[in-house]
This record gives sequence, structure tokens and C-alpha cells, in this order.
Amino acid sequence: MTTPIPRINPESLFLPLNKVRIEDSFWSEYIRLVRDVVVPYQWEALNDRVPEAEPSFAIRNLKIAAGEESGEFGGMVFQDSDVSKWLEAVGYLLASGPDPDLEEVADGVVDLIGRAQQPDGYINTYFTLKEPDNRWTNLAECHELYCAGHLIEAAVAYYSATGKSKILDIACRFADYIDSVFGQEPGKLQGYDGHQEIELALVRLYQVTGRPKYLELSQYFLDQRGTEPHFYTSEFEKRGGKTHFPQLDMAHDLSYSQAHLPVREQETAEGHAVRAVYMATAMADVAAKSGDVSLLDACKRLWRNIVSRRMYITGGIGSMEHGESFTFDYDLPNDTVYAETCASIGLIFFAQRMLQIEPVSEYADVLERALYNTVVSGMSRDGTRFFYVNPLEVHPEACGKNHIYDHVKPVRQGWFSCACCPPNIARLLASLGGYIYSSKDRTLYTHLYIGGQAEWRLGQDQVQINQSSNYAWDGKVRLELSMDAALLFTLALRIPEWCHGQFNVTINGVAHDISEFTVEDGYLLIDRLWQDGDMVDLAFAMPIMRMKGHPNVRHTAGKVALQRGPFVYCLEEADNGSQLHRMILPREAELVARFEPDLLGGIEVIEGTMLRETSGAWNDDLYREEEQAGLGLSETRAKFIPYYAWANRGPGEMMVWVRSL
Amino acid sequence: MTTPIPRINPESLFLPLNKVRIEDSFWSEYIRLVRDVVVPYQWEALNDRVPEAEPSFAIRNLKIAAGEESGEFGGMVFQDSDVSKWLEAVGYLLASGPDPDLEEVADGVVDLIGRAQQPDGYINTYFTLKEPDNRWTNLAECHELYCAGHLIEAAVAYYSATGKSKILDIACRFADYIDSVFGQEPGKLQGYDGHQEIELALVRLYQVTGRPKYLELSQYFLDQRGTEPHFYTSEFEKRGGKTHFPQLDMAHDLSYSQAHLPVREQETAEGHAVRAVYMATAMADVAAKSGDVSLLDACKRLWRNIVSRRMYITGGIGSMEHGESFTFDYDLPNDTVYAETCASIGLIFFAQRMLQIEPVSEYADVLERALYNTVVSGMSRDGTRFFYVNPLEVHPEACGKNHIYDHVKPVRQGWFSCACCPPNIARLLASLGGYIYSSKDRTLYTHLYIGGQAEWRLGQDQVQINQSSNYAWDGKVRLELSMDAALLFTLALRIPEWCHGQFNVTINGVAHDISEFTVEDGYLLIDRLWQDGDMVDLAFAMPIMRMKGHPNVRHTAGKVALQRGPFVYCLEEADNGSQLHRMILPREAELVARFEPDLLGGIEVIEGTMLRETSGAWNDDLYREEEQAGLGLSETRAKFIPYYAWANRGPGEMMVWVRSL
Repeated sequence: MTTPIPRINPESLFLPLNKVRIEDSFWSEYIRLVRDVVVPYQWEALNDRVPEAEPSFAIRNLKIAAGEESGEFGGMVFQDSDVSKWLEAVGYLLASGPDPDLEEVADGVVDLIGRAQQPDGYINTYFTLKEPDNRWTNLAECHELYCAGHLIEAAVAYYSATGKSKILDIACRFADYIDSVFGQEPGKLQGYDGHQEIELALVRLYQVTGRPKYLELSQYFLDQRGTEPHFYTSEFEKRGGKTHFPQLDMAHDLSYSQAHLPVREQETAEGHAVRAVYMATAMADVAAKSGDVSLLDACKRLWRNIVSRRMYITGGIGSMEHGESFTFDYDLPNDTVYAETCASIGLIFFAQRMLQIEPVSEYADVLERALYNTVVSGMSRDGTRFFYVNPLEVHPEACGKNHIYDHVKPVRQGWFSCACCPPNIARLLASLGGYIYSSKDRTLYTHLYIGGQAEWRLGQDQVQINQSSNYAWDGKVRLELSMDAALLFTLALRIPEWCHGQFNVTINGVAHDISEFTVEDGYLLIDRLWQDGDMVDLAFAMPIMRMKGHPNVRHTAGKVALQRGPFVYCLEEADNGSQLHRMILPREAELVARFEPDLLGGIEVIEGTMLRETSGAWNDDLYREEEQAGLGLSETRAKFIPYYAWANRGPGEMMVWVRSL
Repeated sequence: MTTPIPRINPESLFLPLNKVRIEDSFWSEYIRLVRDVVVPYQWEALNDRVPEAEPSFAIRNLKIAAGEESGEFGGMVFQDSDVSKWLEAVGYLLASGPDPDLEEVADGVVDLIGRAQQPDGYINTYFTLKEPDNRWTNLAECHELYCAGHLIEAAVAYYSATGKSKILDIACRFADYIDSVFGQEPGKLQGYDGHQEIELALVRLYQVTGRPKYLELSQYFLDQRGTEPHFYTSEFEKRGGKTHFPQLDMAHDLSYSQAHLPVREQETAEGHAVRAVYMATAMADVAAKSGDVSLLDACKRLWRNIVSRRMYITGGIGSMEHGESFTFDYDLPNDTVYAETCASIGLIFFAQRMLQIEPVSEYADVLERALYNTVVSGMSRDGTRFFYVNPLEVHPEACGKNHIYDHVKPVRQGWFSCACCPPNIARLLASLGGYIYSSKDRTLYTHLYIGGQAEWRLGQDQVQINQSSNYAWDGKVRLELSMDAALLFTLALRIPEWCHGQFNVTINGVAHDISEFTVEDGYLLIDRLWQDGDMVDLAFAMPIMRMKGHPNVRHTAGKVALQRGPFVYCLEEADNGSQLHRMILPREAELVARFEPDLLGGIEVIEGTMLRETSGAWNDDLYREEEQAGLGLSETRAKFIPYYAWANRGPGEMMVWVRSL
């Protein structure tokens, strides 16, 4: 059980969060919002003290389970996970800087979780309070291991930040108990959870504790998934056909939870998008640790299928509301889309894990696309309102009146009864520092250009990196290195796909020809004896790009989307009037980017002249012959804003893919 | 109670069905299918003898209610109406020609209905068998008066065709009983049905029997609708909140059944499309008979809203599956559309009633549009398969995989458990002769150009009209008149909107200049002393029209649909390959119509050269910058077929609105 586990590759491990501090003109404000607004608000919500939100019951459930309050369980079957996600976010915030008051509150939550833990290590307030005899009888639907996974992630984050082992001990006791319940051995359950999460959490627990059994249990859950005879069928029959979410029929719609095939045989991303990418994240984790090439190949196939066939230009995934799911190749409707914020966060997890296995810039490009567009779109500019669904085209009147849009909101919402997205945004942004740099041997990779400081330990030496940039808006980045003595190492700098290889490099003020350097898998490798105070300046070309969708995508046919740097752009009614479908972007239109410091927190807008269809002599007819329709085209000034900034000025039409000529 | 009821106008009454015989190159085959295939098949279905269909239980329910069989009620709450619609269609078939075997079967059904009638006159097998104590406790949901309405319509049709009064007596007893239950008087129910139908049926019963109380009861139901305090609320409370279709919440979603406002205050067509047009039909009926101008104004407003804001180019209505409903102005999605066949049939009823009040060609134009496109699309070329939903764009893979299309079928279906559409098509086509001619004083209107013979009684005289035409394909019509002696009257011939006023008139072989005649409300009036043997030839210009949707319709932006004569055209994969969204119709494309006798029963196809987007150097990327996308355009031959003929060659893509330049 303790034989060393082979690795697929020397991994490029990301610098841990406590070694990276973000000071960035774009991101610092979002992280501040997480710290000052989202996490405190969420704490109030968890304690049922937000009058305008449905009560969460989450803290109360724990108190009842701990025997300290009386009452009934409240909320969803996975309500516990909201507390864990909050605690995880708190852990990340504390890793970036002290906050004694917050830590005191969090310590109290840790204590409460400890008191709610059952003698055998089990923690789940739904089953403890409502169905104490039915533990592990409905894995397909009831999120038992999912909640365990979030608790473990919280434990790892909080322990890593504070060094306090109490929550880690709680999580290990729970994980040990789970390990005693599940496994190949006779008498154990050969099951796995309907919502993947425990798998990636156990790998993190393994990383922190060094105990291989957690990695092995994760691998067991992955290996077991989708095998025949099918676990969901047998547990469904055992519990007499009782079902928790009848409208979804999870016990039989196997692809909904990616349980339709063994994971290594899955060629396409199917079902619930969040589950799919959480699963793929764990697959990449286990492949990296176990050296399982067939698992890695499966990850690559799923990745290729998602990014080449099933991803919106905003990095959103999940084309339909039913099952919050993927549909099929090239099916990417812009208006009835789901593109859940959490799914893009999961895609970022997956991308990060793939980057650790092989530093190939495509992973970071997709990570950046999801981060700068769908994820940051998920939260309002003041941190109080959120999108669950991130449409690429909205007609507000339709959202209320045509029920195919019931899931699409034209403005961000305050809080959700199924509150998965806001805490997920919080934990991602609070841990954003952990996505910027990774190292592999003597190479330091910069995947994201986000300003701040980082410390990299290279053998016995230490390198400090100070990144300053206004990258998102002007493509310019400066990296300054500090070290005690000169060091030979490679700085690997990601070349974003959107610059099309057009960029300048200056080292200590001296311009270099790019041909002096090697470019490998999308990274510019600067291999030299670095001196304290060395300074690298990068300037990536940031043209306004007219993007086209693959010709097989029927929803982008005849349309273009604008992109500049990491940002995808959109038209909003607030700037362009209503009836955006009448606007046409001619091929020869001159487009100019201009910074508007007072608009939506300061954004670079794109302006140009478009054509607008005029009604002319059109009368009350609904249909007319073209010749007699009297339609005309008039020139009109148009303003595009970055997609993430939409819906901050009240309800209005929005459109990413615009008609083009 | 017997005071004469004022009329809004001298009406133009349609010639009754037994005075019109259809012999038409296009329609006779459809009517033959109704007689030889649909009605016999439906009879087998009603008797649960169709192995591949879910059992109907409809005849069995009647037998159980008559005490002749034992068992439980089966089917939907409105199952009785299927028997009535069948009997109504049989009545129309018998009106057009004798069929002793069919009549014998139908007489048996009449007898059975008589035996199932309760002593007080009530007929409804659902309530009689399942909830005998709950009659009239759930008008909003349970279709009790709807079923009564269909029984009355069947009775009127069967009595009118055969002269046998038994079914009429049954219907009158039932209607008299209903009249004793509902009304303003104390002790009576102040209610009305959730699904309008009784209202128009009672007017027909009034027309056949001459008894004003049926008209007054119809008017009562219309007047009562949508008034406060709301009947649905009071009956909902009285029955303790019991609900029959919980997913629709009909008791509270008042606009679903057009009960949100008094009918005269309804400005827009809302809710379930079939109900809306059945209601409007009855409103027009009552307005015509009662002289109620405010009711007529409401009809005109609803008409205007539908045809100017909420109707597909195919004459389909109902933009969404949820509630089979209208949505809002200019919301006409082509792929998630509902456009139920029954709704277009109801629109035809409404149009016919408006034509009776004022012969204005727009009503007939819309009637023709719905008839030649959505209605006839509803049935396969062999009469065995049917569309409930009539989409304007289909991507078959999406129908199975993206659940926003769950209601859209890429091929016609055999029979439905809620079998409303096939019998509705049957009864409409079997009574099609009743939609062709109407007369007002000394004017004979020809609304539809359908070949066959008709007899018109003009005072003491009789005029025979023999129409022969290949109108639908070539725009040519010949009318030959026979009469005993010369007669002075006006022949009013509809000028279809699609000819844009371009047509030739020849009388007895002599060409006339159109300016010789008056054109009134879209009808060419030929006022002369007609002689036996007179012959009028019409030749309407039938250009291929590139149609545009109103600029406010976002779903037709940048697209055109082809129309030629009454037919809207579409592209099908069978002729044009897949990925129809890649095809573009340039403005200058030369389009040619050509008759293909062996294709789909003989159709005029439209051919021309279109452009098709080629992938060129596009690689595995999902998004590329336009300049580097390597997209190209190649010329491709395209073939359009009439919309009604689609989906007769297996599943494949179909598209009405095609991209244009």
C-alpha cells in the first residue's frame, strides 16, 4: 500500500497560494469584493440572516446534527457543501493575508463541523437528520460523497492556510470511514457518487497528507464509474425504486452523471457539465500521480471534444438547461444556452491540471478565456449579484414570456436557493494566485499575466518575481526578478493565442528578436543566467479580432464576434439601442478600441460604424416581398463592451455574435 | 326570448357542404386519404384495434357508461371528443357523397352515445365513470363543456348530412341541460370552460335548430369569461385546490385559457393558441348574429394582432411548446416553435367567420396560407402519419439531444395519445367544400380556387359553378356557369395577395382589361347579366417571391423565405445535403420553378444557384479569426420544395428561412 506511485512526467506544479500575492489593476478589485462582500454576505446567508434570500439552513443543520439545536433539516440534500465552499474560500483568503476576525469565525465553523461529525467519522446533516438509516443507499442522486469532497477541499485549504490541523483531522476521519465503506473487497460498496467531487478532493487530501490510500480511493471511484453491472441500477432496485429528483431520473439517465461508460471509454463530454469537468479534473490528477496513460488519453480526448466542439467563445460550457448539460458537437445556441458559471470554473480546474501534466499553452488559453469572460461575468461589478447562466444573447422580454428562456436572467440575481455559483466564484477568485505560475525542474512557467509578487524556490535558492501589467487591456507585462545570487534557469512565458505570435520582448530595456529564443508548446523560453534585478518586458499585439465560429456551428453562421486580448465583446442595448438583430458589422468596418475610465469600472470599449436595418416603408404586414419591403440600411455608431461587463446597467438586449457582411 | 336578433350586416354565408363537390388536382387526393385512410384508421384507433398506438379507450368508455361493458375509464379527461370529431368528419364525408357502410357504423355510434347519455341529458364518460359527484367542479381544467361542444358539432354535421335527427336530439337534450346549469340566474353556475369550443358549437346548433337560447348561452359563456370575481378561483377554492394538470396550473395562469380579461378587453392573442382562435371564432359568430359591435371590434383586434405580430409565414401560430402558446409580438423562433396543426385549423375557422361578416380578401389570404402550408404539412402524403408541431427549421440530431426540441419531431408520427390533430385535419379536409364560396345578396364570392362543382340558390333561381384549376401550381382558374335563364349578379373573385394585383381576366375567351371592373376589399367584382355557359378564366401572376420578415422579427433577420403562389418553400437535406445553415441565397440568384411529376406526388420545385460556405483551411479550432479562418464560398445548385411536402423522405434537415445576401 505504500509503494511509490510512478508519475507520468515530472509535473510542473503550480506555486502554492501562500507564495503568490496578487496586485493587479483588473483582478485585485474582484478579490477585494470576494473578501469584503461575497464571503461576509455568504456567511450571513448560511446563518439565515439575509431577509431577501430564501433561508439556507446550512449552519442550523450542523447545529441540529451536533445536538445543539432542535428542528428539522432544511434546504437541499447537498446543503452542507455551501458551508464547506465558504470555509474553503476563507482558507484561500487567509493564505493571502491574515484576518484574525474571519479566522475566529472559521475556527468556530470547524469546531461545529467537528461536533456534527458522527462517532464513525461520517458527516452529512441531510442523512443524519432525515434518513439516518439510509446512508449510501442513493449515491446516484444524493450527493453524499460530493458533500464529503467539498468538506475535504475546505479542510485542505484551511489547513494549508492556517496550519491548524483540526479540520484536516476531521476530514481524514471522514475519508478513512469512506474508505472502509467503499472498495473492491467483499462486503464493501462498489459504488461512486452521482456528482463527482470526492475524486478530486481525495487527491488533494493525498497531496497534503502523503497518504496513498486517499489517492487509491479516488482512483477506485474513477475506475468503478460506468462499469457493468451498473451500480445505479442495483442501488435503485435495493431501495425499491425510491427517487429523490424524479424529473431527472438520474438512476437511469446514466450519461447525465457520466456513468454511461467506464471513464476511459468516454470519447465525448456528456451530461451535466459541472460533473463532467470535475470528473475530468480528477482523472487528470490521478493520471498525473499514478502514471496511468490510458486515463491521461481519456482526459485529452475529453479536452479535445470540449474545446473543439462544445465550448462557447466565452469559455462557457453546457448548451442546454435540461440537466445543465452538454448536448452534441457544434450545438451551441446563444440564447437558450446554459453555460453555468460553475461549469467554466470546473473547466478552469481541468485546464490547470492538464497544464501541470504538460505545459501546453492551449490549456492556459482556454483557462484564460473562461476566466476573463464567463467566470467574471458571473458576478456583478459590486459583488452582490450573480449569474448562474451566462447567455451569449439576451432579449429581456423573451426571458419572461417565452418559456424556453426560463433559466436565462437578463440581470444578475441576488442569491440562489441552489447557491452553487456564488461560492464557487468566491473560492476560485480567492485562490486565483494559485493559477499563475508553475515550475518544472529549472523552468518557471507564467501561465497568466496577473500583477503581483511570487516566490519560487529553486533548489536551495529563492527567486522573487514581481509582475506588473495592464495586460488585459494593453497586452503589456513586466516581470522583475529578485534573487540573492545569479541563477541559471528558464523563464517560460505563455504566448497568448490571440496575439498570433506577434509580440516584442525586451530584457533590461534591450529589445530582442524573438528568433533568439525557443518557443515550445506556446511558451517563449528565455534560458539564461538571471541576475538580481533583471527585468523582462513583454508586449503582445492586441488587435481587434473578428472571430468566426466553425462552419458546422449553425448558431454562428453569418455572424462574427469581436475579441481583443482575453476579452470577448458584446453589444448592449444601453449603448446601441434595442433590436440589436438589426445591426450588421460590415467586413471593412473600421474598429477602434478606446479606454473609458468611468464606464463599468473602467473598460476598453470597441467602437465603429455598423449598419442598421431600417423599416422604411414597411407597413403593418408581418411578411413582405423583399423588393417591396422598403427595407434600408443606415450607418450607425456602435459600441461594444467586454462580455464580462454586461448587465450592469439594468435589463436590456445583449448580443455576442453579431450579423456580419 | 324569441325576439329577432339583429345582424351586424347582411352576412355572406358560405355555401353548405352538400352544395359543393370538390374535384381538384391538388385537394381531391387529400380528401380521398381522409375518406379511405384517416377516418377508417381513426375508427380502428377509437376501438383500440391499432397495435402500434396506445389504446384510445374512447368507444369502450362510452360502452361502459352505457352499462354494456365493465371496466374503468381510460384515456384523457377529454377522450370523448375524439369520438365526436370522428363522427363530425363522417358527417362531412357523407354530405359530399353516400357511403352506406360508413353511415351504418356511424349510426351505431349515435345509438351508443344515446345510450351513454344520462337521464338528465349529461354526456361525459370521464365524469360519469370516474367522478360522478364532481360534474362542473373543474371547468378550468377538465374540458367538460369542450367535449359537449364537439358532440354538438358532430351532431350538427351528421344531422345536416343525413337528415337523421337522433344525434341532434341527443345534442339538444345535452345543450338544454347545460343551459339549465349555467347562467346569470341565482342558483346557476356563473362559469365557462377552460378550453373554448362549446361557444362556437352552440352557434352552430342555433343555426340548425333556430333556437335563440343556444346563441344566448354561447354569448353568456363569452361574456362571463375573464370577469371578476374570477370563476376559476372560486371553483378552485370550492374543490379544495384539487388540480388535474398540475404542471400547467390552469386555475391561476389565466391567460393560458384567455380568461385573464373579459373578451372585449383582450388586445392581444395570449395563451394556448387553439383555445384563442376557437374563442375568436365564437366571438365572430356571436357578433355576426347578435350585432354586437364591441365584440366584432375585439375580433378585429385579435385578428390584427395575430396576423401582424404572431403568425409564422406558414400560417402557423403558437411560438412555444409551454402551454402550446402565443408568446409576444414578433417572437417567432423557427426551431423551437409550436405551430400546432390544430391551431392553424382554428385560425381557418376564425378567418372563415370573419369572411362571413366582411368579405375582405385578407381573411381568405391568411386562410389559404394556413391551409396550403401548415394544415397540409400536418399529414403525410399517404395519410398515415401526422405532425402536431410544424417547425420552420429542423436539425434532426438536435431533436433527440437538445431538450428544447423535445416537442419537435423530424418525421411525422403515427398517432398521438392526445390525438387532437389527425381528427382535426380529417374534419377540416372533409368539410373543405364549405370554405370555397359564400354569397351576400346577389354576389357570389369565390374565396378559394379549388376545382369542383357548386350550386348556388339565388332567390328562385339556381346557378351552377364549375371550377377547374391547377391554381396552386400555375395560378390559372376557369369558372363555368350554368343556369336556366340569364341572371344579373356579381361574381366576386378573390385576388390573392401574392399576385400583387397582376392577373388576367378572360370572359368567354375575350380578354378584359382589369380596369373595366371594380376591385373591392381584394375581390374583383364582375357584375353582369350572366348567361348559361359563360366562362371566366383567371390567370394570376405567380412569381417566385423572396419574402422578408418584419424587421422587428429577430428570427428572420438576414434571411429570406421563398413563396410562390400559396406555397411557402423550404430547403430539405434530401435535395441539398446537410448543414443547410451554410447555404446563402444571393439577391441576384436566378430562381426557376419546374414541375416534377414524380416527386412527392407531383410538385413544383424551385431551383437556383446558391452559395455554400466551405471550410477551406479551417482546422480543428472551434473559433478562428475571420482573416485566418480560410472560409470560402462555392456555388451550389439548390432545390426548394413546398413546405407542406417536407419530411416525406426520412429524417433530415429542413429550413424555411434561409440566409441571404
